[in-house]
Amino acid sequence: MLDGFEEIAAGLVATAKSFHARGWLLGTSGNLSAVGQREPLLLAMSPSGVDKGELRADQLLSIDQNARIVGQPGGKPSDESLLHIRIVRDRGAGAVLHTHSIWNTILSDVYARDGGVRIEGYEMLKGLQGVSTHEHAEWLPIVENSQDMATLAESVGETLNKHKAAHGFLLRRHGLYSWGENLAQAKRHIEILEFLLETIGRTLHIRANAI
Amino acid sequence: MLDGFEEIAAGLVATAKSFHARGWLLGTSGNLSAVGQREPLLLAMSPSGVDKGELRADQLLSIDQNARIVGQPGGKPSDESLLHIRIVRDRGAGAVLHTHSIWNTILSDVYARDGGVRIEGYEMLKGLQGVSTHEHAEWLPIVENSQDMATLAESVGETLNKHKAAHGFLLRRHGLYSWGENLAQAKRHIEILEFLLETIGRTLHIRANAI
Amino acid sequence: MLDGFEEIAAGLVATAKSFHARGWLLGTSGNLSAVGQREPLLLAMSPSGVDKGELRADQLLSIDQNARIVGQPGGKPSDESLLHIRIVRDRGAGAVLHTHSIWNTILSDVYARDGGVRIEGYEMLKGLQGVSTHEHAEWLPIVENSQDMATLAESVGETLNKHKAAHGFLLRRHGLYSWGENLAQAKRHIEILEFLLETIGRTLHIRANAI
Amino acid sequence: MLDGFEEIAAGLVATAKSFHARGWLLGTSGNLSAVGQREPLLLAMSPSGVDKGELRADQLLSIDQNARIVGQPGGKPSDESLLHIRIVRDRGAGAVLHTHSIWNTILSDVYARDGGVRIEGYEMLKGLQGVSTHEHAEWLPIVENSQDMATLAESVGETLNKHKAAHGFLLRRHGLYSWGENLAQAKRHIEILEFLLETIGRTLHIRANAI
Repeated sequence: MLDGFEEIAAGLVATAKSFHARGWLLGTSGNLSAVGQREPLLLAMSPSGVDKGELRADQLLSIDQNARIVGQPGGKPSDESLLHIRIVRDRGAGAVLHTHSIWNTILSDVYARDGGVRIEGYEMLKGLQGVSTHEHAEWLPIVENSQDMATLAESVGETLNKHKAAHGFLLRRHGLYSWGENLAQAKRHIEILEFLLETIGRTLHIRANAI
Repeated sequence: MLDGFEEIAAGLVATAKSFHARGWLLGTSGNLSAVGQREPLLLAMSPSGVDKGELRADQLLSIDQNARIVGQPGGKPSDESLLHIRIVRDRGAGAVLHTHSIWNTILSDVYARDGGVRIEGYEMLKGLQGVSTHEHAEWLPIVENSQDMATLAESVGETLNKHKAAHGFLLRRHGLYSWGENLAQAKRHIEILEFLLETIGRTLHIRANAI
Repeated sequence: MLDGFEEIAAGLVATAKSFHARGWLLGTSGNLSAVGQREPLLLAMSPSGVDKGELRADQLLSIDQNARIVGQPGGKPSDESLLHIRIVRDRGAGAVLHTHSIWNTILSDVYARDGGVRIEGYEMLKGLQGVSTHEHAEWLPIVENSQDMATLAESVGETLNKHKAAHGFLLRRHGLYSWGENLAQAKRHIEILEFLLETIGRTLHIRANAI
Repeated sequence: MLDGFEEIAAGLVATAKSFHARGWLLGTSGNLSAVGQREPLLLAMSPSGVDKGELRADQLLSIDQNARIVGQPGGKPSDESLLHIRIVRDRGAGAVLHTHSIWNTILSDVYARDGGVRIEGYEMLKGLQGVSTHEHAEWLPIVENSQDMATLAESVGETLNKHKAAHGFLLRRHGLYSWGENLAQAKRHIEILEFLLETIGRTLHIRANAI
């Protein structure tokens, strides 16, 4: 087992339970990963089909750059491991988190025709790495969903390349991806983006109705 | 006592507490069961009128195929035991869960005139057993509510027969039923269907108002 | 100290923490009581101005039929003790609970011109003591708020007398009162009425907007 | 270390965890402080960039009247320390809390053109220190957001001076500040103002749509 794997696994489990409690990982949805080793790449990855509210550290898998399990005999890595690996490679991320929340699902659809959600003028944006003012405009791109993971990984790669400043992206009617240099930063980014998506979603109601 | 009953009971209790915390089993509403033995049928069943947030494993009842208590002298099985037994028989389910959430109550009424809720195009659908793409269209039938449990069990039986692909159904202004081969799968199905019903309910607001 | 007082106090504390977690007792709002002795009346009552999420059993007060503290030297009973005593007397209640939720506050105002909220056709109604069908129509009267507790107790008394079948009432822009033969039943009634008020409030959005 | 610092730190940690669980301090947002000593001023202050759901007492910083760290070598005080110090000075507060909630963010923007939110007629207002009736009208001023903390502290100072009865204020698209004589009172004020802002926000939906 990789040095430090247990600590990484414990962090992923704590994050999984926190997000499951908030309703962002219901029904075994979503997945979490953190880099254990850069070269050659080893990623601690949540297994497929597991209740994230009951995730145990010994269920975390080690996968390589091709999403093949290293070491352990059992378990099945998430279908979306290729997306995690792509993000780790293209962004130099140390951790990648993917949530299915009510609000990220809704907004990924409502704004699909615009190709993304523009988030601007909120103090919360300052919590995104490298952002120093609420006047920042974050563009959260929306990628069309697909079950062909190689194709989807390509679309994600193109999106990452086109929107180099983006701290996350949405898969349409599917969910949110964000990442960070480490797990704490990735968790912070998810909490911030989920907060802002819910704020925007609820503001749509108020703006249209009451003012 | 049946072999394995304690483990089954512990699983039902953990599920009950999790759902009660989410507000899906308030006011002693809802009920949970899991198959202990197929032939002759023995079902571990939550008792009637118990606070699901404080459910104890020793309160679970064993009932037979006619919803009669086996073994224990005390306790009263839920009135809806007949529905659980029907689902176990018709679907070969290993566990049946019934929740009363705000959103399943609302949508069971709003879509009653359509006879069901059509859920299509969401990645979350892939978590339903046997579904392999978000392009799946799930039809969640709505059954008119009744206090005559024999009649209601018949209506449910007809609905199950007519909609063989359905992973659950709604009772109008009453609640959601879903099931699975085992408790983990049934819990997964409930979390997914509750998530999707809330997503659809909240999207109704946004679509009509703001776009 | 009254026999059984410790057990009663422990039950009130657990209920307070559960409701505070749901956001129904924020900011030291709301109060809880349970009958310790009928003749002469002794009521275990939550003190005024205490954080319900941090309530301790030793903070519960014993008060008599005039809302005077019995036994303990310190502490201040809630201003609304007179309402609790009135409900205990008029309804023969064993426990009285008063919550301040977002939805009970909103609906107590929206329906004020009707004098109450009509709740009909929901399965959840069956959880109210003595109700055996979802076809039941519950009338939840709304009483105008006041800071004169003697006057308010009189208004509440008149309301209880006029609506003998009611399982609770709303104080306008203030909160919900419900009760039961014992604490478990009172807690069940609060959970049911809060659920139904939120369901009705959210349905108002959907009905008007999207159908 | 200051006498009593450990107790103060424990209280701030408990408050931080409670508010983080409610979604009011997501993504390392918000901050909390309590006075340890009046003359010269020493303030226990949450550090910058820390996950409030995992805050530890040993991470709390002591800062002086110029927001310089006293004693500990490490850690970085929040950029908004100057606002806390200003409130402590101008209001004689013993604790200052700052939350980023969905509803305070939305209402700080929706009512920006009015310069504040008028909150009137709610029983919950009675929980604000010095308020004895629901007929009280609370004016919650809105201050335009800025990244220049000296300028923002000046704006806040002017607002506090102009609205001497206010129990809190909003920074536009940023968050809520409230305070109290001690931490318990400050926590009570935040819970009450968050409750009332959510109530007003949700009422905007209902009023416009359904009545």
